[in-house]
Amino acid sequence: MTGQSFTIGLLLFPRLTQLDMTGPFEVFNRLPGAEVHLIWKTLDPVHADSGLGLLPTTTMAGCPKLDVICVPGGPGVGALMEDEEVLSFLRKAASTAKYVTSVCTGSLVLGAAGLLEGRRATSHWMSRPFLKSFGAEPVDERVVTDGNVITGGGVTAGIDFGLAIAGAAFGRKVAEQIQLSIEYDPHPPFDAGSPRTADPALVEDTRTRGAARQKERQAIVDRAAARLGHG
Amino acid sequence: MTGQSFTIGLLLFPRLTQLDMTGPFEVFNRLPGAEVHLIWKTLDPVHADSGLGLLPTTTMAGCPKLDVICVPGGPGVGALMEDEEVLSFLRKAASTAKYVTSVCTGSLVLGAAGLLEGRRATSHWMSRPFLKSFGAEPVDERVVTDGNVITGGGVTAGIDFGLAIAGAAFGRKVAEQIQLSIEYDPHPPFDAGSPRTADPALVEDTRTRGAARQKERQAIVDRAAARLGHG
Repeated sequence: MTGQSFTIGLLLFPRLTQLDMTGPFEVFNRLPGAEVHLIWKTLDPVHADSGLGLLPTTTMAGCPKLDVICVPGGPGVGALMEDEEVLSFLRKAASTAKYVTSVCTGSLVLGAAGLLEGRRATSHWMSRPFLKSFGAEPVDERVVTDGNVITGGGVTAGIDFGLAIAGAAFGRKVAEQIQLSIEYDPHPPFDAGSPRTADPALVEDTRTRGAARQKERQAIVDRAAARLGHG
Repeated sequence: MTGQSFTIGLLLFPRLTQLDMTGPFEVFNRLPGAEVHLIWKTLDPVHADSGLGLLPTTTMAGCPKLDVICVPGGPGVGALMEDEEVLSFLRKAASTAKYVTSVCTGSLVLGAAGLLEGRRATSHWMSRPFLKSFGAEPVDERVVTDGNVITGGGVTAGIDFGLAIAGAAFGRKVAEQIQLSIEYDPHPPFDAGSPRTADPALVEDTRTRGAARQKERQAIVDRAAARLGHG
């Protein structure tokens, strides 16, 4: 695939979790022939849940045909799951893309667009069960590939996800070159990155603190799933 | 330290490597009482080496007193190492900060500011030897702590680095909460993230492709070190 351009579009939206996007962005940008677009409704700055201001590079109306469409996650996915303009754009982009992808709760938006029917997929650990409502099979893995649909787990999984796409599209050598250039040799100073390894009290506490948001998200998922004829 | 604000400033600059900054940013923003500033000379958008457009939140002139000053890396560090306005700002911020920190080649800028004299420190693996020119002791570790100076390795090391600072400033429990919320349970699909683990031919190839940039950087480091009375 070297020598040609490889066109990647990441969706930007208000209240995204910026690292869901910036992790794979750093990998994608280093691919041979990479042409990376950051897509939103307008070219005005978009602010992440953390306040970080990011500049879109194109609009949904102006976006070229993509080899990869990628939807990151964050609190803002609630609004996207009921935003027909966004869902229509994703369906159209997905219809010609080589890879239809997401990081973290971005998979819920793919689900609401009807793009995960019958697919194995993942999401942030706390939101993974919602995928069933969209006809998908939730899988407890960091990166899940089902045909041309590739989904990553929560936030930092986007780096593993990006390298997996690099390997799938360009082969192991290109992916390893990128991994070495970004010195991705992780050594977390603690071992609490998954509900499997974290202290159960911490997992329970995290669930409790997220309960109100997850309840609200459940209601949105239910409505979005009903529109697809599920539920 | 809970209940009080914890003020963190990350330097933005043209041609930074955005993931050097966005990785620790995601961790820092989740700290109790976090007030995170993105600092540059003006409030105009700053473009990363990858083109990503980011919005500063304050200027060097307007920046409040910081608990943490953090300099990310990227090709733009060459200009910073000879930018007296930036170096003076860093010296001033460091004089009152609890932690003086960097990710990737940001440590060369701390070095050029004279802030690494006699300190153990790290950098991106390819630029680590330059630290000697600034009177620092280069250490082949992902996160290096020497007193209140904490430096991280290349690009993705910023996440490990951010969690290490979270643990140092707020204790293990807070750091683990953040690690679980960003699902930092890395599983790189390949094992090429360090020159110790990557295929030696890949390491050599990466050095060869980076040789011109590193030669140019050496000349800048030499001039910056001479200004500090080294060399």
